[in-house]
Amino acid sequence: MAKHALKIIPLGGLGEIGKNMMALEYADDIIVIDAGVMFPEEAMLGIDLIIPDITYLLENRSKIRGIVITHGHEDHIGALPYVLKQLDVPIYATPLAHGLISVKLKEHKMKRGAKLNVVEPGGRVSLGAFNVELFRVCHSIPDAVGLAIGTPLGTIVHTGDFKMDHTPVDGKPSDFTRLAKLGSEGVLLLLSDSTYVELQGYTPSEQVVGDTLERIMAKAPARVIVCTFASLISRVQQVINAAAKHDRRVCMVGRSMVDTAQIALKMGYLQAPPGVLVRLDEIRHLPQRQVAIVATGTQGEPTSALVRMANHDHPQLHIVPGDTVVMSATAIPGNEKVVNRTINNLFRQGASVLYDRLEQVHVHGHASQEELKMMINLTKPRFFVPIHGEYRHLALHAQLAQVMGIPKSNTFVLEDGDVLELTPEKGKVSGKVASGPIYVDGLGAWDMTSVVLRDRKMLSKDGIVVVILAIDKRTGKVMTTPDVISFGFVDSKESPELMEATRNLLTDTLDHGRDHGADPGFINIKVKEVLSKFLFQQTKRRPMILPVALEL
Amino acid sequence: MAKHALKIIPLGGLGEIGKNMMALEYADDIIVIDAGVMFPEEAMLGIDLIIPDITYLLENRSKIRGIVITHGHEDHIGALPYVLKQLDVPIYATPLAHGLISVKLKEHKMKRGAKLNVVEPGGRVSLGAFNVELFRVCHSIPDAVGLAIGTPLGTIVHTGDFKMDHTPVDGKPSDFTRLAKLGSEGVLLLLSDSTYVELQGYTPSEQVVGDTLERIMAKAPARVIVCTFASLISRVQQVINAAAKHDRRVCMVGRSMVDTAQIALKMGYLQAPPGVLVRLDEIRHLPQRQVAIVATGTQGEPTSALVRMANHDHPQLHIVPGDTVVMSATAIPGNEKVVNRTINNLFRQGASVLYDRLEQVHVHGHASQEELKMMINLTKPRFFVPIHGEYRHLALHAQLAQVMGIPKSNTFVLEDGDVLELTPEKGKVSGKVASGPIYVDGLGAWDMTSVVLRDRKMLSKDGIVVVILAIDKRTGKVMTTPDVISFGFVDSKESPELMEATRNLLTDTLDHGRDHGADPGFINIKVKEVLSKFLFQQTKRRPMILPVALEL
Repeated sequence: MAKHALKIIPLGGLGEIGKNMMALEYADDIIVIDAGVMFPEEAMLGIDLIIPDITYLLENRSKIRGIVITHGHEDHIGALPYVLKQLDVPIYATPLAHGLISVKLKEHKMKRGAKLNVVEPGGRVSLGAFNVELFRVCHSIPDAVGLAIGTPLGTIVHTGDFKMDHTPVDGKPSDFTRLAKLGSEGVLLLLSDSTYVELQGYTPSEQVVGDTLERIMAKAPARVIVCTFASLISRVQQVINAAAKHDRRVCMVGRSMVDTAQIALKMGYLQAPPGVLVRLDEIRHLPQRQVAIVATGTQGEPTSALVRMANHDHPQLHIVPGDTVVMSATAIPGNEKVVNRTINNLFRQGASVLYDRLEQVHVHGHASQEELKMMINLTKPRFFVPIHGEYRHLALHAQLAQVMGIPKSNTFVLEDGDVLELTPEKGKVSGKVASGPIYVDGLGAWDMTSVVLRDRKMLSKDGIVVVILAIDKRTGKVMTTPDVISFGFVDSKESPELMEATRNLLTDTLDHGRDHGADPGFINIKVKEVLSKFLFQQTKRRPMILPVALEL
Repeated sequence: MAKHALKIIPLGGLGEIGKNMMALEYADDIIVIDAGVMFPEEAMLGIDLIIPDITYLLENRSKIRGIVITHGHEDHIGALPYVLKQLDVPIYATPLAHGLISVKLKEHKMKRGAKLNVVEPGGRVSLGAFNVELFRVCHSIPDAVGLAIGTPLGTIVHTGDFKMDHTPVDGKPSDFTRLAKLGSEGVLLLLSDSTYVELQGYTPSEQVVGDTLERIMAKAPARVIVCTFASLISRVQQVINAAAKHDRRVCMVGRSMVDTAQIALKMGYLQAPPGVLVRLDEIRHLPQRQVAIVATGTQGEPTSALVRMANHDHPQLHIVPGDTVVMSATAIPGNEKVVNRTINNLFRQGASVLYDRLEQVHVHGHASQEELKMMINLTKPRFFVPIHGEYRHLALHAQLAQVMGIPKSNTFVLEDGDVLELTPEKGKVSGKVASGPIYVDGLGAWDMTSVVLRDRKMLSKDGIVVVILAIDKRTGKVMTTPDVISFGFVDSKESPELMEATRNLLTDTLDHGRDHGADPGFINIKVKEVLSKFLFQQTKRRPMILPVALEL
């Protein structure tokens, strides 16, 4: 048995286990895989961004040899500006991811000091005890890679986000040959994407969407507005191809769409025949039948181009009857309601809307069951750890691996923060490191604590009632009738009797309590107790009660 | 042309147009169809229930001849306790709906005065100018009906919630013969359920779920826990059938499940072989292989039996490895996140969970495209108004009708509150009546106003900062250093410097402003202005700022 065990540590804790960040450790070396963000749900009050907890990495900063990026999506690169502020380590990424990271760091005014390195798909980099090969996989962004990581104990394969797609738009399929070779040489551990383990069969090729888009561009009587993710560069390529074929010009709308397209065009990941791309002010002069627009807003983001159009609130673009809107994406869980609202409003404006329940206008970027089985069969790993998914996805993926013959004792369903210690013979979860989500609100200088979040939740439920008492410091007597102000509780203009009754109750209560003098602690408790009981009786609501005693 | 026009008025405004309440009016007669509630989304802060606005009905109370109920689901009967408090009109419902309404009114202590009438499916009731026939349709609850409404201008067919299902569990399919007869006699207007217009083909029969349940009951190594809606009585029947066949006892868990099952058993809508149904305290003594449990909680409701089990928080039931949990329902849009969280937690507890993405453990209760076409073809209406759906559903359903040959000018996509005036020759939207959602919070005595809701939203975003100033009434001078208290803004314990800086800023500001005396209006504005600017600079957050000036 080797002297050291390998440690496999999914970090992040942002919802999908191991997705936004992982660490691999052997003796004095650590490599980090990805550094992504999550966007908060509607119910996460006032949070702008969620980033992984890197306490463990900070505690072991001297061991870290680098961060390897699997692809350029926000949930894999978005936390780099925050992480690099605290950890000055080199980054390794494929060309497109490198381009997107550069722009991101520039926005954060951090480009100058960062140690950014480009590795071509198929290339290698040696990081301490780890020899990392970046092999090509298909995903919904070009230049995505999985990692074949040579370690003193054997090879680890980390799939990244992947699907198999034999006919990708960029003509570069996943590197099956390499995977098969790795498998025949022996793989110690497979870490595999579990996102779509619930789906049977195969994920359709991105080409399928191209066919649908062509049909739409040919048939639509007027403008075609295609909405998709800015990062879905092959989708944008297919819109350009279909539009050009049917004599339409293409206009990009929305800051992230324009920015990403510019990088992709410059780097050659996106191509357009001369004259096809036009600016927004140019489309006015074109017949509607010759216009295609590519915009963001598929998740119902309130400030996106699409949502503003749907609400008749965009400065330059208005939906007119005859417009065809194509929602070339699916709603991320939690966004369904706002996406549906956007579609409803587009119909109200007279558009014809095509979305996933009606037409095949989107395919996702992750492997379905048969592809996951193929990945296991090609790599033939001794140990299996499902990653990238919520707990149920990992549990189902583990079941799948077991059906394929990997012993249950060699399959590990981890949670973020779990430390899996692995030797060539066996694995066990040996501990737990910090991994909670870190909430970033506003400047991010003020980290969100659970107290602040809890208070916001309470405030949002039944509002707040503030009671202001002026108390004579010397006599301990309440000097005036208490002032009662409420927010988000009841409309005090509409219920003056309730406010009056509250004031009277407080005056009575505090008169009785006079003997206790002006002990602010007592007054505080007494006011809270009496008032919460009274207000609940009257309204069945439980506002936060905030007594403020001014001693004068 | 007849002297009066028919008025068709979808009310409610709770999300799906015309779903929760509709009014039909001719001259001096109004009939109301259904009186349902909606349950709020997670983002609707602190709201318990949403009911329709019945202002129009109250203004025309003398015309109302009765409320006809299409079936016993909450979104069709749940608002009756609120409506009947203000409108003392007779209710007409089929036996099961009648039973469920009785229980509901009893809970609200209103049973005694209510004018509840039972009409058997196939029966008729004459209400002023309207002759209403309740014809049988299939839906996810027994005794559901559509309405064939004779009026002086022609027949209106209102489908209610329906699907076609040729092999329903209760053996009573939709009354196609009656629909065909109505169609051959001439239908003026079809009002048809649009909920599942996005789905191609036919909705599978409820029997399909029975087959899946049987397979699961046969194969499961230990307990089977089936979660579904309490109102889905035919689903519960199928669980009982499958369990009995495979030698399992059935135990109902959760108040609404037990209550509904009791009514359904008493009325004969649910049947169980002797000895099959057992109490919760009896299952302890049974081998796990002989236990089936039916529970609520499919929407991730925090207090439901299932969610408490998933969180290891149920007093009597704990999930143990080997348990099979069947989620026999789909997540209602907006609930996906909490449902997924529940499934994750069940897997964490060691259960094997079967849900809609993995097995056909649920079919829904609404017609898909081919059934909707069949409905139009059977009834052959002159006018068509899609109902029961969000705007996009109605727009798509109108398109479908137009493809089937109904002229565009005879198709109306309404919004709640729209008044469609119809004569045998033509229709037009002639006005708008009040139809917004009415939010019920707590006792409901305190209606939610938009001010209260807006305040709750603001509070939930960045919290609140309360500034307390004691001002000498005579001199207009601030008497002490201002007190600053925050909730949900920043953790004041963690950021004493910010609080200190805020207090100093306020003291400075108010010293400068001393010349202006103690005008509370000015102080209020000044504090808000200075503080919001300062706090945004410091934190990029925008809390509500509440200055409280005590004049002493």
